[in-house]
Parts: sequence; structure tokens; C-alpha cells
Amino acid sequence: MSSINVKEIGSFYVAGICEKRENVNPSVHGERIVPIPLRKSSGGYFVHGQMYVHYVKLEKTLARYPLLLWHGGGLTGVCWESTPDGREGWQMYFLRQGHDVYISDAVERGRASWAYCDEMYPNPPIFIHLEHVWKSFRIGPSFDIDPRKRIQWPETQFPVSCLVEFLKQNVPRWAGTFSLAQQAYIDYLLKMKESVVIAHSQGAYMVLEALLKAPGTVKGLIMLEPSALYWPKLDYKNIKALAKIPQLMVFGDYIETSEVWLNYIELLRGYSRAIQDAGGFVDWIHLPDRNIRGNSHMLMMDKNNMEIAEIVQKWMGGKGLIMPS
Amino acid sequence: MSSINVKEIGSFYVAGICEKRENVNPSVHGERIVPIPLRKSSGGYFVHGQMYVHYVKLEKTLARYPLLLWHGGGLTGVCWESTPDGREGWQMYFLRQGHDVYISDAVERGRASWAYCDEMYPNPPIFIHLEHVWKSFRIGPSFDIDPRKRIQWPETQFPVSCLVEFLKQNVPRWAGTFSLAQQAYIDYLLKMKESVVIAHSQGAYMVLEALLKAPGTVKGLIMLEPSALYWPKLDYKNIKALAKIPQLMVFGDYIETSEVWLNYIELLRGYSRAIQDAGGFVDWIHLPDRNIRGNSHMLMMDKNNMEIAEIVQKWMGGKGLIMPS
Repeated sequence: MSSINVKEIGSFYVAGICEKRENVNPSVHGERIVPIPLRKSSGGYFVHGQMYVHYVKLEKTLARYPLLLWHGGGLTGVCWESTPDGREGWQMYFLRQGHDVYISDAVERGRASWAYCDEMYPNPPIFIHLEHVWKSFRIGPSFDIDPRKRIQWPETQFPVSCLVEFLKQNVPRWAGTFSLAQQAYIDYLLKMKESVVIAHSQGAYMVLEALLKAPGTVKGLIMLEPSALYWPKLDYKNIKALAKIPQLMVFGDYIETSEVWLNYIELLRGYSRAIQDAGGFVDWIHLPDRNIRGNSHMLMMDKNNMEIAEIVQKWMGGKGLIMPS
Repeated sequence: MSSINVKEIGSFYVAGICEKRENVNPSVHGERIVPIPLRKSSGGYFVHGQMYVHYVKLEKTLARYPLLLWHGGGLTGVCWESTPDGREGWQMYFLRQGHDVYISDAVERGRASWAYCDEMYPNPPIFIHLEHVWKSFRIGPSFDIDPRKRIQWPETQFPVSCLVEFLKQNVPRWAGTFSLAQQAYIDYLLKMKESVVIAHSQGAYMVLEALLKAPGTVKGLIMLEPSALYWPKLDYKNIKALAKIPQLMVFGDYIETSEVWLNYIELLRGYSRAIQDAGGFVDWIHLPDRNIRGNSHMLMMDKNNMEIAEIVQKWMGGKGLIMPS
């Protein structure tokens, strides 16, 4: 593989609120038995609600706009870097194609840090386990800790031998921090001024509202298996605004085995129809229709991840998002 | 600035234990009032104790070994990437000098993820606030939220106008997870086979034990303001083993204003003497002795961070860790 010419690698934060808190440890903690000396956090000025962004800027880009990769729920930007079985991720693919690539960790995920105050995060964190990954991410219909006893979809493209490696990149998540995450994505788009976004799952769930609050900033939107869409405020004026943006949705295999996914698809079809009624168009790619079988929810790390990246790259070319060579 | 030729950017995890847990949410959480529907984590197989490693490999290296950057307490690998005021960090500096650069997030920090089970983490998390950063990191003697009322050391090199930006990269930490973090660093050194380590603060606190458990792997060790050293098991045999490794310690300014730091220095002098008695040598650089004034605990992001990086780079050259040109 050829090398890439990099101008700069770095990172920054967007959003974040600095506020005084007197009691940062939930009071219940104080009553626990503490076996070693505990430095309890004292009151003071803390920050929360910030988002982390890592970037790689090329010496010479071939794409018109920076490419922003937004991860899904329970994950961080790591999902775009390497695959659990050590192959190259979408970050390297799109760098090789000449995009400046920006990868974020959403509020309270990974390097974005998190706060643990009852007032900030009203609910306990949610942890993900192997069985959840196996079933919800459509790797197979039945899970057992013994690999010989679990059942995977016969053509699965997920690197199943590295399931535990994948679990290592999962992070706790909270319900109830949606508005903080949403605000950070808006700030991010405004800071970038112009960009193309690839959003996966929960990342795509946040994207529509961000597009409306940062109008004109996103020149192309690729949604990988959007878990749902933020629907309530999509009146005709909003739909009209969104209809101007070239949009693509990509779905993997086994959708029909999942009631949750069948429901999402129904919602997303409604969204597509509304965009079409407003004079726009959302391209749909259901991979099995192209005879690409076995993709899980984690398209960017499945064994054929480069084949799917290429489809996305070609779509961007068709929408004028790549410089003419 | 000239560009760099990059072969690959990616990441991986080391260490981590996959175990069955029945009750992953501490029971007290179940009694809270939950304003929105809560998907409580069910029992299952979870992982914990893993460490995240990000790498940039160059097309052509000028250093003999990969360079591993280990962050300090309450932080993640972000501290090496860019500075809070947007200048280049040590990652770019050492890439430009021809090192393959590896940056880790220690167990339960940042992208390493964290577990929240009473059994795993016996203590509540510790959060860091602005006043703590200001005083402990030796930015100034007296803090106030109003910048006009806080007192900074007159020559401070810390980018004080971006104090809140710096706080954004701080993450909660736990006491009581030391052995998990330690094991991950050992696994990391063994996986790398050969390396040079730059360890900051708490990162340096973990490094000696890791060197002993991964003998022969570390060819050079740079400790930036080591917060303390893991002392107990350093019998003569261990000291003898460590004495073979070229070692450098670097300290900033205002040490004499801090009782904590004066104590550390005392410990570290004892360590240096022991290494010397065993036929080795630890180089000490106290920056004010070289007329480099005003450095905080965060040497890698202070305004003169490149000047200090250059000192480290020259030291490596002197120890034969850079290829002869």
C-alpha cells in the first residue's frame, strides 16, 4: 500500500460548559466501605458536555470538503480506526482517497470524558455485553459464551473470532444526555464551516437536528444504518432545507430478522418520501440487493468493509463531492 | 512545516478480561427516579481492564524503536496530540523527527472504556476541577474563577487563557484499579517487543514495574515529572536490571513551592542513587537550572513545549536511540 502525505495530526474539543458544583460525587458513594485512602472530589468548577475531535489533514486533498465520521451508540471514534481483527479501518481508506478525516467521540463517550452528577446525567450508565452485541448488531440469532455453541448467520461478514476485541471498544452510555450531545454536534458543524458527514447508527439519529441548526454547512450526508431519526421538528420548512443536501443510506443484511430494524426502516422510508416530496432525494443502498451478503450493523469493520467504503466513495464522486481528476 | 510520509494510522487494545457479571449496575441506581425509559443493563459477559493504543507508523523511520507516550493521572493520550490553545503537540514533533508514535489511554481512561461494578472498582470516581489543575499542576499559587483575581506564577509557560479547554481533556479516574492498569502496561510492552517510553506523572509511576515484568523490551526511558515511583519490589536484583536502561527525568519550575513535589524529588533522588550504585545512571534535567523558566507540570503542552521536546530528542540521540544520519 502506498503511503500518505500528512500535513498535521491533532485534536480539539467543541462545546462544553464550565459550572460550579458543590457535590460531584453522588452522596450514596460516601457510605461505601473504602479499602484504600480515598481522595474524594471536592466542590469546584467542572466542565461537561464537551466533544472530542481527532483529525488528520493531508498535504493535498482530493475531496472538496473535510470528511467527518460520527460513531454510533455505546461506541467511540475507535470504530473507524482499525477493525477488531487488525485490518485497516475507514479512516485509512478515506485518507488514501484524499479526504481530510475528522473522527469525534460524542459527549460522555471515550475521550470526550463524562460527568457523574445526578443533576447532569439523570440515569445510571448502560453497559453492553457480548450477547447484546451478537444479537442487536445482527451477527447471529443465538449466543453462547462457548463459540461452538453460538449460532452465527451463515454468511456473516463480522470478524466473529474477534468479538471480545470488539467489546473492548464499547463504552458506557447514558440515556438523558441527548441535548448535550446534540449541541456539541451543532457546534462541531459550525466550527468546521463546510463538511461531508458519514454518520453511523445513533450518530445518524443526531444528525438531522444538527443540520438544521448549522444550515448550509453539510454538503453531503451518508447515513450507515441510522438507528432512528429525530423526527418531531421536521415540519415542511425543515424538510425543505434538508432536501437540498445529497443523502445516502446504507443497510446491511438480515434486516428482516429484526423487528427493531423493520420499524426503523419504516420510519426512514417515511423520511425519504418527505424529502422526495420536497424536491430532494435520498439514495438507498440495501447491500443484499447488490448481492453483497452477510453485513452486520458494523459495516465499517465487517470483513468486506473496504468494498462498502468504495461504494460510499463512488457515491460521493457522483454527487460532485470529489475533485475532478 | 514540511509534511510527513505516513504508512498507516490505526489503533488496537491490549489486556482486558471477559467475565460474567449478573449485576452491572450498582444496586443503589435502581432506586433513582428515572424521567425517561431506562434500558437497564442486564447480566452477561463484559470486558474490563483493557487499554487503548493509537499509532502512527511512518513510511521511513529515523529512530531505532517505536516511541510510546504514556499520559499521567486524570488524563488520556489527548495530552500529547495538540495543546489546549491549538498548537502542535509532542505527537507531531516526534513524528517529524522520524519516530513511529504510539499513544495509549490507560485502563478506565478515555477510549480504554471503564467498568462500573462495585467489585471491579471499589471506590467512586474522582473528578478534577479548575482549582485543582491550577494549584497541583503548578500554574499559580492562588485560584479564582475570575481570571483577573487569580494569581499565576509570573513566568508561567502554561497556556492560561485556555485553562477550561485543558479541563475538557481531563477524565474521571479511580483509586484501586492500579493492578489492572499495571498489567495492561506490561502486556503493551511485551506486544511492542522493543520500544522507547516517554512517561508523564502517573504514567511514570507505573513504568518501573512494567519494565521488570517485560525485561529487555524498553531501550530508553524518559520520565516527565514522575509523580512517584513504584518502590516496594525494587530489591538489588531489580535495581540491577533497571540500571541497564538509559533513563532521563525532566522537571519544570516551582518545585520548591510544593511540598508534594519536594517529597517526590526526595524519593526520586533515592532511586537515582540506587541505580548509580548498581552501575547505571539517571540523567536529571531541572529546567530552571538551564535557565528555562516557568514550566508547569504539563511540560508537553506548555508554551515552550517544542523546546523541551527538542531536549528529549537530543538526549535520545546521545543514547544511540536515533539512527546515525
